[in-house]
Amino acid sequence: MPWLANRDSIIERLRARPESAVRLWVEAGRERASAPIIDEARRAGVSVRVVPAEQLARRFKGIRSHVCLEVEEFAYADADGVLAQAASLERPFFAAFDGVYDPQNLGNAVRTAACFGLDAVFIPRDKACAVTDAVINVSRGGTERVGISRVANMARHIEELKKRNVFCFGLEERAEKPLCDADLTVPLCLVLGGEEGLRRLTRERCDMLLKIPTVTIFPSLNVASAFAASAYEVVRQRAAYVR
Amino acid sequence: MPWLANRDSIIERLRARPESAVRLWVEAGRERASAPIIDEARRAGVSVRVVPAEQLARRFKGIRSHVCLEVEEFAYADADGVLAQAASLERPFFAAFDGVYDPQNLGNAVRTAACFGLDAVFIPRDKACAVTDAVINVSRGGTERVGISRVANMARHIEELKKRNVFCFGLEERAEKPLCDADLTVPLCLVLGGEEGLRRLTRERCDMLLKIPTVTIFPSLNVASAFAASAYEVVRQRAAYVR
Repeated sequence: MPWLANRDSIIERLRARPESAVRLWVEAGRERASAPIIDEARRAGVSVRVVPAEQLARRFKGIRSHVCLEVEEFAYADADGVLAQAASLERPFFAAFDGVYDPQNLGNAVRTAACFGLDAVFIPRDKACAVTDAVINVSRGGTERVGISRVANMARHIEELKKRNVFCFGLEERAEKPLCDADLTVPLCLVLGGEEGLRRLTRERCDMLLKIPTVTIFPSLNVASAFAASAYEVVRQRAAYVR
Repeated sequence: MPWLANRDSIIERLRARPESAVRLWVEAGRERASAPIIDEARRAGVSVRVVPAEQLARRFKGIRSHVCLEVEEFAYADADGVLAQAASLERPFFAAFDGVYDPQNLGNAVRTAACFGLDAVFIPRDKACAVTDAVINVSRGGTERVGISRVANMARHIEELKKRNVFCFGLEERAEKPLCDADLTVPLCLVLGGEEGLRRLTRERCDMLLKIPTVTIFPSLNVASAFAASAYEVVRQRAAYVR
């Protein structure tokens, strides 16, 4: 079970999502220094256990703090459920991030996805950053607002999306067609790679590859920035925003 | 004088910008462990000094490494020079970041600025992140490709830009006019705030305030993402890219 040991993170979590907090552990003899956190936990209805330092160290390997909050695993959305739901959406808008390893990038991308009202985000189950507490923090609440599904095989998942008439657009520097020349008002999934770009198998499954118009000598946008520009273009074309 | 103590950062700097490296310092007795770095420095023509541990610790407070590269300060572009040059540019494209404190955000924004071929970026001299080594690293070479100027007073700088017929567009969540409804083919400067949004004095100086069309319940894009979306829109409208 994941745990938070940073005091600010603990307090933030107790305030923002007390239901995901399981138990607060405090080192015996340190109750006074941890009083504000203990109060916050009691207020949130989270049980508090005071234990000797050795027990804390045994239970939470590598801990350097005198206080620790056990939290529930992040609740991923079920990918099959999201696929089943796709048909009922008016104009599905998904994004798939294939191989993003940096929590800052994934957190920022999820924040952007929440901002632009995406229906769901897909990430690989392996070889990629999961929804860690860093991601949750960087997303500024985005992880609470857009469903995130882990998929075992991204290439196969793209096939499943296509079967459901969701157009899969891969974003790639070397593509010929500029983003704004594609019709993005159709049901779609934007597919982005990590720092290494799209993986071959993923790229080959996409319906179309698009590029963001950058200057040729320095073409490499950060994945979160590339996603912000392309998601913006989708929203602009759909003009589905509240003015 | 700034210094790098991380081995990867040192090697990267020696390879990418040897001219900015001043001197490599190595703790006596640790020459063998640092041999690859010493070789790299010699190859780059950077002088190497071997000194006792105490001297290293005295010179570079807080150092935890046995090797340290002294580097030159980042060379900012002169703001007055950039202003003087504005008239000679066909369609100036600037960005001003007013109060970005996070080096990840500033580094990503500079990377995006380089990608979209901006002419220069303005940041405040105080109360904001400077171009630190973290910024340089995150920008992935962007800081080498777009001039960055520090200005003492952003509000006054915006006045100076306007005098030179550069239209200043402030990006703000609460603005009424969507980004894509503005004519961004004119000479312009995009003005973005930090996490707190635009400062009042800066906002009041802008010619026009624009919003990025996000869903209303969760409107807060990260500043680097907001910049990616708005710079993309400028480039899209200008269609000044190589297809």
